[in-house]
Amino acid sequence: MMKNNSILFFSGTDIYSLLTMESCIEAMKDGFSALSKGEAVMPVRTRLEMDADNANALFMPVYLPHIQKVGVKTVTNIRNNPAKGLPMVHAMMLLFDSSTGVPLAVMDGEAITAMRTGAVSGLATSLLAGKEASVAAIIGTGTQGETQLEAVCAVRKIHKAYVFDIQPEKAEAFADKMSKRLNIEVVAADSAAVLEEADVICTATPSRKPVFEDRHLKSGVHINGVGSYKPDMIEIPPETIARAKVVVDQMQGCLAEAGDLLQPIAQGIITQESIHGDLGDVVTGKIPARESDDEITVFKSVGVAVQDLVTADLILRSAQEKGAGTRLSLS
Amino acid sequence: MMKNNSILFFSGTDIYSLLTMESCIEAMKDGFSALSKGEAVMPVRTRLEMDADNANALFMPVYLPHIQKVGVKTVTNIRNNPAKGLPMVHAMMLLFDSSTGVPLAVMDGEAITAMRTGAVSGLATSLLAGKEASVAAIIGTGTQGETQLEAVCAVRKIHKAYVFDIQPEKAEAFADKMSKRLNIEVVAADSAAVLEEADVICTATPSRKPVFEDRHLKSGVHINGVGSYKPDMIEIPPETIARAKVVVDQMQGCLAEAGDLLQPIAQGIITQESIHGDLGDVVTGKIPARESDDEITVFKSVGVAVQDLVTADLILRSAQEKGAGTRLSLS
Repeated sequence: MMKNNSILFFSGTDIYSLLTMESCIEAMKDGFSALSKGEAVMPVRTRLEMDADNANALFMPVYLPHIQKVGVKTVTNIRNNPAKGLPMVHAMMLLFDSSTGVPLAVMDGEAITAMRTGAVSGLATSLLAGKEASVAAIIGTGTQGETQLEAVCAVRKIHKAYVFDIQPEKAEAFADKMSKRLNIEVVAADSAAVLEEADVICTATPSRKPVFEDRHLKSGVHINGVGSYKPDMIEIPPETIARAKVVVDQMQGCLAEAGDLLQPIAQGIITQESIHGDLGDVVTGKIPARESDDEITVFKSVGVAVQDLVTADLILRSAQEKGAGTRLSLS
Repeated sequence: MMKNNSILFFSGTDIYSLLTMESCIEAMKDGFSALSKGEAVMPVRTRLEMDADNANALFMPVYLPHIQKVGVKTVTNIRNNPAKGLPMVHAMMLLFDSSTGVPLAVMDGEAITAMRTGAVSGLATSLLAGKEASVAAIIGTGTQGETQLEAVCAVRKIHKAYVFDIQPEKAEAFADKMSKRLNIEVVAADSAAVLEEADVICTATPSRKPVFEDRHLKSGVHINGVGSYKPDMIEIPPETIARAKVVVDQMQGCLAEAGDLLQPIAQGIITQESIHGDLGDVVTGKIPARESDDEITVFKSVGVAVQDLVTADLILRSAQEKGAGTRLSLS
């Protein structure tokens, strides 16, 4: 029988050279719109416990009929790795054509995760932050912190960014690297008080206690929270959640995993009903975005498989235009 | 942070050159033994319906602590493909180290499926067929038919094989190809009566009605059934199931999918309790194998994720010895 006999491979370097943050934010808009319209077929992700290795693995499959693609990201979380100086998380992404079934591409999943996690905050920022936002603050200097800042700069005219890390030398290194990359002023913050200047704040840490104080927030600030993907993790103060308009990437996922929401709910500070709604419903206009200059908005994300699929699809389309990627014969 | 920055890719050709059927049967023994001992962590496989493409996708994750590997095979089934001359099924396999979380390999899943589906029948034949079995019959001439015959020849001194197909020219082509590959006499059967000579029968068809008659069976025959992976598919006559010792690859999977068992159960010809048990329990000696020369034994398999994982692990180990595979930088 005839078959399509090859697959494309994309490394992290390939992915970063093929994607722009702007195109990735557009892809998120399409993906979250499909999610809001009920078009995405996304089974509950499978979590496989690997107790003997103090680890787990996640399998996140999703199908988007309108782009005729089905994909799955596999993620391993090895809790013993950080103590050994190894990254806790590894990931790979597989992409198939859903009309023919042929495998199309296999990709480094970590680059996809970093780009799509930034891009969804970019989409949320474009919808929720004040139009004149010009100062950003980034809390946490890992890969996610970098793509958060890049995404915010893609949707607002940011001229200055403060960066916070519990290790000051990391904040300095981040400031140096990102000011060059983005061609804006990036400053390692020397005091929590500078947060009062920030129009957009991004938190991207593994913290188990709030990473800023509510009293330091500027009126009308928008906050993107991408850490706190487990119930015992928290970045945003409960009193901020209580007074903010809170938008989530997906209600079901956030109510299962996000300590930023679960802890204030458990404390009786907010209820599930206090949460404004899903980002996709803001994209499609089912629910309003920002409604006043002084309201505080929070976008909380734990990650949705649709983000990985639209990103993988974008990588493939971009590669096909440019003839990029490593072609491998399957037969 | 330090990370393992590369992954190995294996095409179908790589896989067939790295695996021997004998080594693959040994790997099955190890995998089914782990399954019997309750060591395998194997969530229910996820089935994603792709109605807009008249298709579905299956995600089959599994973790084996004793080899410190976790893997997932993704399979697409496109029902419109055969009418277009395209294969209905495509598959890819991903393998990770569960102790470090690093992705180790990505592999063509179709070659893995063919080898492991043959190998598990080889393992069952080694445990269940008569020791002096010397004549085989293969019904169905696809890739699965080829690996079935190869597997049976790996565990019994087969000197002659009959091959059946509803298209006689396919049977002729199969006989020609396989007699050369295996160096035995392979004959396209010209009458159902020759089945009476067979000590081992393998059925590997997409049939929706029995592919042989019970009255043609030789006393003491062993039958491997690998088609009938949906309730409306059947290869083995219900009266054969009723009088045979039936061993399954995994009870839960077979009782959900195998028409060969579900149809006689629905007809009241057998009950679930009539089924002898799981192959892994025969491997570990929890339940007996063949108990007399004249009993008829049936091994029914629908496929278990553990088979894919031990096969992928074997491919990787074999490749590491030989320096085979295509190394791809992930970063």
